Amino acid sequence: MIVRPATEQDADAIWPIMEPIVRGGETYTLPRDMTREDALAFWFEHEAFVAEEDGGIVGTYFLRPNQQGGGSHVANCAYMTAPWARRRGIARTMCLHALATAKERGFRAMQFNFVVATNERAMWLWQSLGFAIVGRLPDAFLHPAHGYVDAVVMYREL
Amino acid sequence: MIVRPATEQDADAIWPIMEPIVRGGETYTLPRDMTREDALAFWFEHEAFVAEEDGGIVGTYFLRPNQQGGGSHVANCAYMTAPWARRRGIARTMCLHALATAKERGFRAMQFNFVVATNERAMWLWQSLGFAIVGRLPDAFLHPAHGYVDAVVMYREL
Repeated sequence: MIVRPATEQDADAIWPIMEPIVRGGETYTLPRDMTREDALAFWFEHEAFVAEEDGGIVGTYFLRPNQQGGGSHVANCAYMTAPWARRRGIARTMCLHALATAKERGFRAMQFNFVVATNERAMWLWQSLGFAIVGRLPDAFLHPAHGYVDAVVMYREL
Repeated sequence: MIVRPATEQDADAIWPIMEPIVRGGETYTLPRDMTREDALAFWFEHEAFVAEEDGGIVGTYFLRPNQQGGGSHVANCAYMTAPWARRRGIARTMCLHALATAKERGFRAMQFNFVVATNERAMWLWQSLGFAIVGRLPDAFLHPAHGYVDAVVMYREL
């Protein structure tokens, strides 16, 4: 598996990964009815990357400063793995790539602002990569199946 | 003091409040060299309000959903008080207005994502209005005088 910068030519391969995640509404605070155009514009607004395996794209992430000004030394990322390629370490590989890239860019820490607490696999994965839960937002997410659930803030120095 | 919706006609009164706060860079994660145009565009992108006293504007705040989709029931606000009108309860009055307005709009909670930990007056004020510190971001803010300092996440149900 390689991780490389995304280009506009990857849009047709990225959308089938994003679409079920956006429509499912279980992990991201994006409108479930977001259009392809708006979703791709949101993704490509930042520095986007793709994970490629056997010539097919199986995951994507973006890297950006989490805040401007005095907060711009902390990075933020969002990751999406293709539903048909789960449990193969793709998110882990992308996160390791993101941590190295962020450090190279001069960021001093990485923050995830909103990890839905029912997304246990993600919380476990980020913790295994050195992120700590530094905050808990009570009932901050309306899960389509579970109703109001907590979200957590995760943080790690680089 | 009255708090009312801001209009484009208030821009000339809002900028002198924003400018020293943006240029100072001690409390907001905005670029210190942000232009008047960009700062006002950022402010008016959301639902903005002003606090008016004796016909003069002494404070401003905006209200918005903190997240989209499954997170859109949590409100977020930013407040700025005129440096020449501090310690007169203006931020408190604006926050009480924001809490009532947010509740009226159907929000279920309010979150402040990034309160700089050296901004003790703000932390004390929000706590006195029922906000709890639910997270702490280590060294997440580069303060122009104090170097890297923590920021906190504050949250309260409505």
